Amino acid sequence: MNKYVSRRAVATKRSAIRELLKLTEEPDIISFAGGLPAPETFPHHELAEIAADELREHHENVLQYGLTEGSLTLRRAVVEWLQPLGLRLSVDQILVTTASQQGLDLVSKAFLDPDDVIFCEAPTYLAALQTFSSYQAERIGISMDEDGMNLDILEQQIAVARQEGKTLKAIYVIPDFQNPTGITMSLEKRGRLLEIARREELLVIEDSPYSQLRFAGEMIPAIWSLDTDGRVITLMTFSKVLSAGLRLGVLFASDSDLMDVLVRMKQASDLCTSKLTQHMAARYINEYGMDEHLRMVRACYRKKRDMMIAALERYMPQNEGITWTHPDGGLFLWVCLPDEIDTGKMFPRAIENKVAYVTGSEFYPNGGGENAMRLSFSLNSEAKIDEGIRRLADVVREELAAKRVGASV
Amino acid sequence: MNKYVSRRAVATKRSAIRELLKLTEEPDIISFAGGLPAPETFPHHELAEIAADELREHHENVLQYGLTEGSLTLRRAVVEWLQPLGLRLSVDQILVTTASQQGLDLVSKAFLDPDDVIFCEAPTYLAALQTFSSYQAERIGISMDEDGMNLDILEQQIAVARQEGKTLKAIYVIPDFQNPTGITMSLEKRGRLLEIARREELLVIEDSPYSQLRFAGEMIPAIWSLDTDGRVITLMTFSKVLSAGLRLGVLFASDSDLMDVLVRMKQASDLCTSKLTQHMAARYINEYGMDEHLRMVRACYRKKRDMMIAALERYMPQNEGITWTHPDGGLFLWVCLPDEIDTGKMFPRAIENKVAYVTGSEFYPNGGGENAMRLSFSLNSEAKIDEGIRRLADVVREELAAKRVGASV
Repeated sequence: MNKYVSRRAVATKRSAIRELLKLTEEPDIISFAGGLPAPETFPHHELAEIAADELREHHENVLQYGLTEGSLTLRRAVVEWLQPLGLRLSVDQILVTTASQQGLDLVSKAFLDPDDVIFCEAPTYLAALQTFSSYQAERIGISMDEDGMNLDILEQQIAVARQEGKTLKAIYVIPDFQNPTGITMSLEKRGRLLEIARREELLVIEDSPYSQLRFAGEMIPAIWSLDTDGRVITLMTFSKVLSAGLRLGVLFASDSDLMDVLVRMKQASDLCTSKLTQHMAARYINEYGMDEHLRMVRACYRKKRDMMIAALERYMPQNEGITWTHPDGGLFLWVCLPDEIDTGKMFPRAIENKVAYVTGSEFYPNGGGENAMRLSFSLNSEAKIDEGIRRLADVVREELAAKRVGASV
Repeated sequence: MNKYVSRRAVATKRSAIRELLKLTEEPDIISFAGGLPAPETFPHHELAEIAADELREHHENVLQYGLTEGSLTLRRAVVEWLQPLGLRLSVDQILVTTASQQGLDLVSKAFLDPDDVIFCEAPTYLAALQTFSSYQAERIGISMDEDGMNLDILEQQIAVARQEGKTLKAIYVIPDFQNPTGITMSLEKRGRLLEIARREELLVIEDSPYSQLRFAGEMIPAIWSLDTDGRVITLMTFSKVLSAGLRLGVLFASDSDLMDVLVRMKQASDLCTSKLTQHMAARYINEYGMDEHLRMVRACYRKKRDMMIAALERYMPQNEGITWTHPDGGLFLWVCLPDEIDTGKMFPRAIENKVAYVTGSEFYPNGGGENAMRLSFSLNSEAKIDEGIRRLADVVREELAAKRVGASV
């Protein structure tokens, strides 16, 4: 049956993380693999009341088809919520999506022809790489510094790609508490990135799933708020701030021509997003407010990050050059092991020790990261984080010992 | 900003129907345009109870990410529901989608490269045409008889396309109460279509949103149930049988290689569908059963179809060669006016008279249908159907008179 398969589908791998998620269903494995939000942060009592009320009192509306652009109720609520946070928006600059992943799909569908180049951080969000592949785009990874994408390398790579006659379309970045590294891009770099994009006539795709989850340090303005000529498209999601199960996100585009194309792509993809889930989010924002709720969510993740870093410090072998990031928000941190360790080859040993992570190389569009791994601190209880890191440190210790025995043989 | 737009996006028009839907928001227009299900058929009390219970008791599950393939709970419920109706299925042959539209998108993404040929009925579902365009496929329309696609013409067109060296991939059909015509494909033609597909090595995309909405005549087996070599992919949706607002559908593929590709495409498109809406549908099926509910839905649409046909007989000009279909199910019927009338040019007169339809030409991939229109009988009350058809008949009468004055001048 393979002859029926499209070239784009051949180019699209199954997501390793989605496959790894199946491991999390085995109850004795402590998994730091999936980027699942903590279920204790879902405001389920409130959502239950809202859902029941919407279905009893407004069923003719919420159970019917809706506008492709998204419910006005939700778009207005998003404007009201984000305005005080420095994100200037109007309702017609917002497209409601089936969470950020559909935002990535629509952006790719709207703007990426086969072989078009999209620059992204290396490492970057695995499922974004998968989506860009599914439109046969060329993904060029730019390495990361402690304050975000290395923009000197970006400029070099742009020049090289231009010389090779390639069509350059966009730069994809996750500025806040990046997935997978937890790194945040500095304000200076955000400004310079936008300047480069303007000069080189590239779109900027700003993926912002975690920006509301800062639990340390000062808020840095979104690239969206620095944009003056409509080249930034920003993606946000309710998955990490309200619930992943609503499958709800918003895409911002201030250029009406670009928005028009994105709406057409959404029409062709799934007509519209559920009004029930849209109204659940909208009424939650309007009736309960996000401020207090997000304070709780941030406190929860801060505690878990602290616990994970404390456990890494306690259990990981010392003086081996093992490093990890100290994110100021989000769900993830990034661990680099000595070069001789391949976290892919180490993985079976981890599963044997009942602990899981995502291998670093999965996040690189053009190779790299073999000695790294992503750990998510969001889902597990503090006790499980401690126990899981203890197991993981044992795995690393065993792997180091095995390497050395191998090397001395 | 147009230089950023992909070729596929340039090839994708905005859906005329989605734009027309905006007219339905003007309260004094009686619109037969949108294919909206009747809100009185939504079992909202039951759905409200289920939603509240799921969010109170199972929130850690339904508010979290789920499997890309879809919740096992829903897939099992679908198997149980459809088995007695002659649709042999196992859970691993089912992929949950964001309603049928996403099913069409995934099938296109998985199988259609630019310039690949997909054969479809002419006329056919407008948004399917839009989706095929969004993957730059070539859509070849095959005219319809009273018992479905004309298969002699299909065979001729296959031969022509082969001679032209084109890559042929699939045949897309809506066998039951087709959108837009209301026509049902005969059993004999279903069998022959499958034979042609087998001989010519084409996939069959069977779009089946209305098959459970038969209110007259005998059920005809799905093409799915005639397939022996896994080349049929069938799409169903809950939009017309439970609620459009759930944005929930199911795709069936018995070939595991094809299913694997479709799952990858779903991963890259939106990761997974909401477990909340999936469990709402699953528990409705399990706790209330679809049989009794569908009896009510069918009775509702039968009454409305009867009312629309009675009104057409009562009000439409006689002896002018105006014809309409008599569907045995579904939401639509198809009206053909005398050749000299262009329903597109007549449209402003209809809006002036506060009635709306969809112009026939919208449904043709390669031209045609200028004298036709699609009328949906599903949404409006019986009184509004009568009044709307009275207005529409006036519009037709005026248009005929204007043509004749024009012709005699």
